[in-house]
Amino acid sequence: MQALVFDGTEPVLRPRHPDPKPPPGEALIRPLRMGVCGTDLAICRGYGGYTGVLGHEFVGVVEATGAKRDAGWIGRRVVGHINCVNAVCDLVEAGLRDHARDRTVLGIVGRDGCFAEQFLLPVENLFAVPDHVDDDHAVFTEPLAAAFQILRQLTIEGRPYITVLGDGRLGLLVAQVVNTLNATVRVVGKHEAKLRHCEKWGIRHRSLGDAGLRQDQDIVIDCTGSARGIETAMAMVRPRGTIVMKTTTAARDLSEAAPMDLSPLVVHEIKLIGSRCGPFPEALNALSAQTVDIASLISKRMKLADGVQALHEAARPGAMKVLLTP
Amino acid sequence: MQALVFDGTEPVLRPRHPDPKPPPGEALIRPLRMGVCGTDLAICRGYGGYTGVLGHEFVGVVEATGAKRDAGWIGRRVVGHINCVNAVCDLVEAGLRDHARDRTVLGIVGRDGCFAEQFLLPVENLFAVPDHVDDDHAVFTEPLAAAFQILRQLTIEGRPYITVLGDGRLGLLVAQVVNTLNATVRVVGKHEAKLRHCEKWGIRHRSLGDAGLRQDQDIVIDCTGSARGIETAMAMVRPRGTIVMKTTTAARDLSEAAPMDLSPLVVHEIKLIGSRCGPFPEALNALSAQTVDIASLISKRMKLADGVQALHEAARPGAMKVLLTP
Repeated sequence: MQALVFDGTEPVLRPRHPDPKPPPGEALIRPLRMGVCGTDLAICRGYGGYTGVLGHEFVGVVEATGAKRDAGWIGRRVVGHINCVNAVCDLVEAGLRDHARDRTVLGIVGRDGCFAEQFLLPVENLFAVPDHVDDDHAVFTEPLAAAFQILRQLTIEGRPYITVLGDGRLGLLVAQVVNTLNATVRVVGKHEAKLRHCEKWGIRHRSLGDAGLRQDQDIVIDCTGSARGIETAMAMVRPRGTIVMKTTTAARDLSEAAPMDLSPLVVHEIKLIGSRCGPFPEALNALSAQTVDIASLISKRMKLADGVQALHEAARPGAMKVLLTP
Repeated sequence: MQALVFDGTEPVLRPRHPDPKPPPGEALIRPLRMGVCGTDLAICRGYGGYTGVLGHEFVGVVEATGAKRDAGWIGRRVVGHINCVNAVCDLVEAGLRDHARDRTVLGIVGRDGCFAEQFLLPVENLFAVPDHVDDDHAVFTEPLAAAFQILRQLTIEGRPYITVLGDGRLGLLVAQVVNTLNATVRVVGKHEAKLRHCEKWGIRHRSLGDAGLRQDQDIVIDCTGSARGIETAMAMVRPRGTIVMKTTTAARDLSEAAPMDLSPLVVHEIKLIGSRCGPFPEALNALSAQTVDIASLISKRMKLADGVQALHEAARPGAMKVLLTP
């Protein structure tokens, strides 16, 4: 089958990648839409040392299951958690499945991803998609869940000032989600065209140059995707404020960066919260209720066969979500 | 008067530093004991760009006050908060005096420190020391308060595993304080002689090489004083665990260090809490009740006149608290 693979040097389209066969507990899924994420681009710059089929954002149809008891899933349209548990450990027992010590992650750690004609995922990771949520929306479940994760980690007291730092794909999802809080939300970014979306949503926005670094924000959410985003965040958040860090960054980016002075975290007693994957049910509910504007975030649809080019598209400054179709 | 000054290049003893005169609201204090802190050493490596009289740990006697209404303080033995508010701001109004936007900090930011025959501090910063707390103990109020600050910032659920990283002056104070929690506490350090103190206190300890980086600690408190301490902390703390960061580090140290990969904070959803100054009343209570072993932490007493040498002593690997006497 066709698959978009990172071979350790560059992304390549393999026309004859081996067809996957589902073992017991897993499902064989044919993707209908796939989303290109910043993490895919980071992997192509060396992040995490991953090689294999790329991709972890998808909506697809279950074509087969490894065990007969799971046959009820066949034919259903699904999305799925990307963290796959290989063995029960203390963290799994504590309910932290996304943090399982022995885990694979779809298209990121030790498991082929979804940028292919077919791929595998454990049945226990799947969620059925309501019929009225179309493919273009459903494919946003994973990144939208990552945005909802922030609501689970933050404590909101009074009516805080929140800055979403970064106007990219994730930043604009996060902005829409945190804008449902009792908070004064603004997006700070670099791209005028992207920031204009905020007007439709009634969210305040500023260009980075105009925003000022006044240590006056109660909460800053770093969605910049840049290793230096945290420095801007430290300059914007008030003493005793909170930074939510969504940015993971490729080692290669770091080696180009100067060493960082983290002493402001201590001097200003800032709380920094790392935030990764999130709750699918909440994301599916929001997509079902259409409380998040997804259509504005799609900048391009391309064929999987043009996947290499799609990665380049997604890496262009100003690009929004690039979707792949089979 | 005699004063130990950092002149921007090196610490020097000035025999004829100008005598300070208290303005209204401030007190003139003659220190009885002074403590050398890691921050003093960091300043001498360029931290914060401070120049002036060094020192912020003291116990002393009030000799004069700028305003008559404060004359009741004269003759009293005192310790004092090191952050001095120059102007009321949103943070001061919110009760965060230690974070006042317009502030000076004794011997650290814009205000001569206590390594001198006399120095100034606002009267509102002062705390009277109970008679039965001797000078050698009272001089530890400031660093002990910084240790107690951690208790105010942490949430303890169940019986967590806590690692105190670093067996220096601050680490051993912190270890004794967090050992009062419902927690399994251990100290991880590099100095066998220092770690042996933990045995007296019934606190488990490990050398850094033996400790293992197993991501199994619920809470790691970085008291290493090294810019790379956070990397060890990230390797020890469990996913969704907490790192308390006590280490501020000189810019010069950073330029020697390689750039840091902070992505584990995001991937493992770690909470990092910066922690600086703390509550004096709690520290004075503990000193008064003798619940913290201070005597073991004093490695040397030297004259202020030998202050330059005292800084070198305190910088020696394995050194504990070096106290200065007038």
